[in-house]
Amino acid sequence: MSERADMAEPRPDDLAADDKTVEQPESRHDEDDRLRPDFVSAVLDAVEEDDRDRARDLVSPLHPADIADLLELTPSDRRGDVAAALGDLVGAEVLSELNDYVRDDLLDALEPQQVADFAAELDTDDAVAIIEDMEAADQQAVLDALDPEDRAAIESALSYPEESAGRLMQRDLVAVPEHMTVGQVIDYLRDNRDLTTDFWEIFVVDEAHKPIGTCQLSWILTCPRSIAIADVMKREQTLIPVDMDQEEVALRFQKYALISAAVVDASGRLVGMITVDDVVHIISEEAGEDILRLSGAGEGDINQPILETVRTRLSWLVVNLGTAVLAASVVGLFQSTISKYVVLAVLMPIVSGMGGNAGTQTMAVAVRALATNQLTSSNTIRQIVREFRIASANGTALGILIGIAVGLIYGNHDLGIVIALAMLTNNLVAGLAGILVPVTLDRFNIDPAVSSAVFVTAMTDVMGFFSFLGLATIWGL
Amino acid sequence: MSERADMAEPRPDDLAADDKTVEQPESRHDEDDRLRPDFVSAVLDAVEEDDRDRARDLVSPLHPADIADLLELTPSDRRGDVAAALGDLVGAEVLSELNDYVRDDLLDALEPQQVADFAAELDTDDAVAIIEDMEAADQQAVLDALDPEDRAAIESALSYPEESAGRLMQRDLVAVPEHMTVGQVIDYLRDNRDLTTDFWEIFVVDEAHKPIGTCQLSWILTCPRSIAIADVMKREQTLIPVDMDQEEVALRFQKYALISAAVVDASGRLVGMITVDDVVHIISEEAGEDILRLSGAGEGDINQPILETVRTRLSWLVVNLGTAVLAASVVGLFQSTISKYVVLAVLMPIVSGMGGNAGTQTMAVAVRALATNQLTSSNTIRQIVREFRIASANGTALGILIGIAVGLIYGNHDLGIVIALAMLTNNLVAGLAGILVPVTLDRFNIDPAVSSAVFVTAMTDVMGFFSFLGLATIWGL
Repeated sequence: MSERADMAEPRPDDLAADDKTVEQPESRHDEDDRLRPDFVSAVLDAVEEDDRDRARDLVSPLHPADIADLLELTPSDRRGDVAAALGDLVGAEVLSELNDYVRDDLLDALEPQQVADFAAELDTDDAVAIIEDMEAADQQAVLDALDPEDRAAIESALSYPEESAGRLMQRDLVAVPEHMTVGQVIDYLRDNRDLTTDFWEIFVVDEAHKPIGTCQLSWILTCPRSIAIADVMKREQTLIPVDMDQEEVALRFQKYALISAAVVDASGRLVGMITVDDVVHIISEEAGEDILRLSGAGEGDINQPILETVRTRLSWLVVNLGTAVLAASVVGLFQSTISKYVVLAVLMPIVSGMGGNAGTQTMAVAVRALATNQLTSSNTIRQIVREFRIASANGTALGILIGIAVGLIYGNHDLGIVIALAMLTNNLVAGLAGILVPVTLDRFNIDPAVSSAVFVTAMTDVMGFFSFLGLATIWGL
Repeated sequence: MSERADMAEPRPDDLAADDKTVEQPESRHDEDDRLRPDFVSAVLDAVEEDDRDRARDLVSPLHPADIADLLELTPSDRRGDVAAALGDLVGAEVLSELNDYVRDDLLDALEPQQVADFAAELDTDDAVAIIEDMEAADQQAVLDALDPEDRAAIESALSYPEESAGRLMQRDLVAVPEHMTVGQVIDYLRDNRDLTTDFWEIFVVDEAHKPIGTCQLSWILTCPRSIAIADVMKREQTLIPVDMDQEEVALRFQKYALISAAVVDASGRLVGMITVDDVVHIISEEAGEDILRLSGAGEGDINQPILETVRTRLSWLVVNLGTAVLAASVVGLFQSTISKYVVLAVLMPIVSGMGGNAGTQTMAVAVRALATNQLTSSNTIRQIVREFRIASANGTALGILIGIAVGLIYGNHDLGIVIALAMLTNNLVAGLAGILVPVTLDRFNIDPAVSSAVFVTAMTDVMGFFSFLGLATIWGL
């Protein structure tokens, strides 16, 4: 379990201290645990000069997660060379840590048998993550190259929907019947050497293999051998249905502070286990995705092929071009007002822009509160009222500020009053749209992070121009 | 360890199945595991009618995390009544799950001794989370009411900076000397009944109490008693310095897939342990914070007192008002051009607005890539080039689209060419500003999520107006 267990001799403190920090030595990582650029360059230079030994010496002390980082930081046209030079240092664990796009790049260069060898080394969930994005024919070739047992496990995982618990779970777990004692459980674990060695809880099941309790290993270790496992286990469990979406799985882990959880099929039978380390990156991804979706940047992966990125961003921009044209057409209605008093054209972007800013603030809060289940139908009305009050306060303050400034600068009180009123109006529109749009989209099961911004910006642009130019026209400016 | 261990009798499957799902029964939770509004109303009604037994019957099957949700969903002016009616159901665990603002509300109503009783029940890290935000005098009163041991542990935690590993760690952990065998470790765990029962790994330390290895409990349980613990443990460890920022701690847990990690003081001695369940909510918060900061919504907590929210959002809006005025002054330079050809005023918001959208896309990607350590000095240049290419492609496409449309609609080819060129220019500005601004801020250790948007929007607004109106003037439109 430890590559260096053979060195388990007592050593002087200074040596031991040096040994402990082997993962983050000064020379390879900066203070934020990122690989230093000069370290990355040193590896690339060694590969360039075909000095594989030096490259391997540099890289071998790194954790697999850091080797994955190194490959991601390598320019894409040189990744194949670097991976080839590093040889077996780029193992299955490194592959499972790699960014999807970078991994697919590397896998394309490998034979199916090589990919199958990697997959066989990994837990089912990591093996599935590696091959699920391959093209059908390549995937089939890899499956054919696997031994029947691994193949069956992976095929079964692939039969569940993408991003579901079934893809995320591993099948290697420890389940014991409830009549066992603590001592019997320990003996069972010691005697069955082909059991997984990485687990944090064991599951207690009935005759039908349905989970009836969960037992932390620490509870087993702190109890006498004679105690029945049924008296140690906890009966309250969070069971994960095998078809549950991974975002939902992540929320459960977070809410109930789970370390691992049993996955059950439709009939309630235990079919797998999800551990928190597989969920942590989903929590981070899902929370980070909102920011990217709200801004129309798609998944926003810097390793995505550039053409895909252009397509994603451009389609969002074209939609926004539509709303911009709509807003412009509102300005078009007031051309005669503007031509009489061109200062209106100077000031109008202030009103629409500030509405956009205020709307984005409210929308970001609402999208996040929806994603974390803090904003539910129980408190929607209260939150709408809250946003209305905030918008009133901000709109009044900003209106007074800009109204006085404009009145003084242009020596025209009426203009000051008009822009102040327009600013208040548009802030109210922004505040209400900022919460009503995401809440409504969510109610119709449309991801509010993806679609809210277009609607909110359209409303604040249109209403910004309409309120300011409309009031100016009525006021006879 | 299980409140229902006394019921550990075999039961028919149907009954057992009912028992297992006790945490998410249909009637209390919706399909997304949120409390149903009618359930929340039923509890509030029971409290209103002073029917405490009914309220407690409804709430008692809930997990502490759900009771915390219930209190958050309760209107703030009724939270005190609900908490009072629920009595001991609102225990220390519920408090530690509560939103900070909601908890402070409730704590204000309690006597120091009551808060101290709650704190004494919790792990140090959770106790610290509860009292760290109290006012100095109240905090002192709670500390005085604690027994000396708990008090010392909490005071020691409070001596570390806010949001540091020292605040996050718990002191209850299992550390053993390396000369022990697996059997001796198990005996030690069984014999010391005052040890914590919630741990996932044990730490092996030398004579100076410095960690030299970590051992998963599953490794201990699957090994014969005679094996030396030093041969089972893993020597490569990620050690967390006690003053490390919690965001950094969260990134390490994520990167190295940790379940728990040893916390060491400046001299390398083991002083505490952080477990992944304490880190999961930080990962989610930090990832979610970006979206809120980028939009100027501060921490964006829907439970924040409204005046604080107004202050946060308004100060951001006032800064943006400054940039809006700056952009408007650019329009002001071209008043004579506009008054000659008022259609320019109609079209100019399209150019500035689209630049804003494109800039936000790039900025969101850059901010996220910086936060996740994917964008480092090793690949900055490459990413800037990438964004420039994306901006060129998008700017060309959008320019051609709007140029043809405008040329046809207004029957003026020159106007079409001018808006097309301005659109391309502003997309390039947006793409470059969108990545250069966050990268530069990050280089100066300024949080790019907080400050990027103001600069990027200012640039796209100013350059949008300047490029379009400037080109129109030069072109003689």
